[in-house]
Amino acid sequence: MAIYKKIEIVGTSKTSFAEAVKAAVAEAGKSVRKMSWFEVVEQRGAIKDGKVVEFQVTVRIGFKVED
Amino acid sequence: MAIYKKIEIVGTSKTSFAEAVKAAVAEAGKSVRKMSWFEVVEQRGAIKDGKVVEFQVTVRIGFKVED
Amino acid sequence: MAIYKKIEIVGTSKTSFAEAVKAAVAEAGKSVRKMSWFEVVEQRGAIKDGKVVEFQVTVRIGFKVED
Amino acid sequence: MAIYKKIEIVGTSKTSFAEAVKAAVAEAGKSVRKMSWFEVVEQRGAIKDGKVVEFQVTVRIGFKVED
Amino acid sequence: MAIYKKIEIVGTSKTSFAEAVKAAVAEAGKSVRKMSWFEVVEQRGAIKDGKVVEFQVTVRIGFKVED
Amino acid sequence: MAIYKKIEIVGTSKTSFAEAVKAAVAEAGKSVRKMSWFEVVEQRGAIKDGKVVEFQVTVRIGFKVED
Amino acid sequence: MAIYKKIEIVGTSKTSFAEAVKAAVAEAGKSVRKMSWFEVVEQRGAIKDGKVVEFQVTVRIGFKVED
Amino acid sequence: MAIYKKIEIVGTSKTSFAEAVKAAVAEAGKSVRKMSWFEVVEQRGAIKDGKVVEFQVTVRIGFKVED
Amino acid sequence: MAIYKKIEIVGTSKTSFAEAVKAAVAEAGKSVRKMSWFEVVEQRGAIKDGKVVEFQVTVRIGFKVED
Amino acid sequence: MAIYKKIEIVGTSKTSFAEAVKAAVAEAGKSVRKMSWFEVVEQRGAIKDGKVVEFQVTVRIGFKVED
Amino acid sequence: MAIYKKIEIVGTSKTSFAEAVKAAVAEAGKSVRKMSWFEVVEQRGAIKDGKVVEFQVTVRIGFKVED
Amino acid sequence: MAIYKKIEIVGTSKTSFAEAVKAAVAEAGKSVRKMSWFEVVEQRGAIKDGKVVEFQVTVRIGFKVED
Repeated sequence: MAIYKKIEIVGTSKTSFAEAVKAAVAEAGKSVRKMSWFEVVEQRGAIKDGKVVEFQVTVRIGFKVED
Repeated sequence: MAIYKKIEIVGTSKTSFAEAVKAAVAEAGKSVRKMSWFEVVEQRGAIKDGKVVEFQVTVRIGFKVED
Repeated sequence: MAIYKKIEIVGTSKTSFAEAVKAAVAEAGKSVRKMSWFEVVEQRGAIKDGKVVEFQVTVRIGFKVED
Repeated sequence: MAIYKKIEIVGTSKTSFAEAVKAAVAEAGKSVRKMSWFEVVEQRGAIKDGKVVEFQVTVRIGFKVED
Repeated sequence: MAIYKKIEIVGTSKTSFAEAVKAAVAEAGKSVRKMSWFEVVEQRGAIKDGKVVEFQVTVRIGFKVED
Repeated sequence: MAIYKKIEIVGTSKTSFAEAVKAAVAEAGKSVRKMSWFEVVEQRGAIKDGKVVEFQVTVRIGFKVED
Repeated sequence: MAIYKKIEIVGTSKTSFAEAVKAAVAEAGKSVRKMSWFEVVEQRGAIKDGKVVEFQVTVRIGFKVED
Repeated sequence: MAIYKKIEIVGTSKTSFAEAVKAAVAEAGKSVRKMSWFEVVEQRGAIKDGKVVEFQVTVRIGFKVED
Repeated sequence: MAIYKKIEIVGTSKTSFAEAVKAAVAEAGKSVRKMSWFEVVEQRGAIKDGKVVEFQVTVRIGFKVED
Repeated sequence: MAIYKKIEIVGTSKTSFAEAVKAAVAEAGKSVRKMSWFEVVEQRGAIKDGKVVEFQVTVRIGFKVED
Repeated sequence: MAIYKKIEIVGTSKTSFAEAVKAAVAEAGKSVRKMSWFEVVEQRGAIKDGKVVEFQVTVRIGFKVED
Repeated sequence: MAIYKKIEIVGTSKTSFAEAVKAAVAEAGKSVRKMSWFEVVEQRGAIKDGKVVEFQVTVRIGFKVED
């Protein structure tokens, strides 16, 4: 049977939560392969001079362990 | 006094969480009427070849029970 | 050391959760200064005639207390 | 062995949470039989002109599946 | 689009949770207008000489920000 | 400094959650003294023949440890 | 894109939690098709004469909505 | 109306979670009577030399208070 | 009966969580009176050059509303 | 296999959360033996005249049941 | 004093949750040593043709960091 | 935009929770660089001969991914 590991990544974006998720997955893809799904754990962001300047999404990414 | 029921739907979208919510509500609208609000319960997604290919949002949809 | 306060605001938008967050922050900026970050607490929305007409996001906004 | 299903209903009342629960159960009884228990999931309410005008209780109702 | 703020109030009553909620809303009404809904966050109480002497309900009250 | 213990009791009532809390506290008072506060942990109930026949409230009761 | 619904079922078994899950899924299969996954929500059980006589598992079952 | 108390026990087993629950209930039965139900609160376990050597289940056990 | 409000403050300290709580309460005391209790909501901190440089504690502070 | 019970104690201290935990454990040691671990469940405190006068920590204490 | 790290693994099994836990621990043992305990975080599973075909358990595994 | 990873570490100390956090961060610093913040996830401890002998704090540590 398959086994998966999960890692936790915080992606950021200037425009939306969806873009922040994509950034997190893109980064994770540099060190792990066979990524299969993500789970949104937390959504936050930074404010500067009264404006939202960064959307931050913590995702848990599940990937298959290779034999 | 009004009474409402809630059902739980998972909508999916290739582009964003907001679109996934809309897809869930559109589907729910085929079988229930008088929908009034939704609550986001969970946000996940699928990854393939290192890229996010699907945003999945579980929503609870509240609708008025008709007399 | 710095001290921060948090207030809870519900922003709304017709298009996305990210826009609803921005609306909440813009409103908060009218009465508090030195806002530093936000945390998404709840995501809901309104449905009318079978369509999503409003995205609602409750955010906690942290701002620095001025000396 | 017995099997149960759960449905989620929002009952409302002008006077108390207990009455809102009873309203939810009464409504559920129109479409399901052999209801066995309820669990309070959420308690909210509406305010108008500075006064509480509605108590709203979300209950999960468990009922036995008939053979 | 409308914007709402939430404040957190603890109402108390000698008789029931519903009365404690009403007391919280009545107090909040002295300083904020356009209150729209409440959410029950916590239910506690005080005991003295072996008897319940106070029901305490923490509610979050949402009110519309005026333009 | 004072030390407290907490015990968990399920009180029941035919009429309301407040009465169920009082029943739990009354029972606890038979075996412990110096009860100081209660916290509502869970609210459930029993349904029979389509009607709510019992409100059940689980409370945690805090009482001072006697020297 | 695919849409899923979730229903909540309580399965029971005399021997284990895994058997209770299977019972819940078997029952659900009588009324819905294209079931895809389950999520364990709660694990409880009944005791009689000092012995565990029933394992009860509440599962949320996700199934694909057919076009 | 009936009143129940709850106690929290950690049962252990070398083979499964279900056996750990049974062990907890068996032990509780030595000091309390009229046990009625259990709720699984936590599932953990011990690992030694790379192998699971113990399943640990924390259960809350409800029992009727005798008149 | 008494009514309380709660506000949310983030206190910081270079040495411990307890000091961070005290800092939050001291700051709150500049704008509200009759503070009665605090609840720890979140504990975080900042790291710089591999060392903890700040303990951050979010507390909810309850204070009595004056007549 | 070993069986453990858990009890819930609120320890208090004028100086820190760690001291409050120690006070809770010291008190518990008067009535139970073979205590093995504690879990922090809640951290609160009392404020008087604008100052923190008491740190309160609720701990669950696990102890081995003696044969 | 000892320091531990935790990693998150999803084990799967065709027969039971306990077997899925063992599979996760066995896999983790290939890359880390001195594993000490596991915590069950989530229990899910896959359904195919109306039958449970896979039990999936997410566990957090704690292991001692070697000096 | 910046990307962060989170790892989970359990630090221990004989004296306080703050020291246990510092121990966790010190250990993490041996294998990762650019640590930015920590979040307290769990606070537990060990008891021996009726005394607290170890404070254990699980922290999630966020660190910047280097380009």
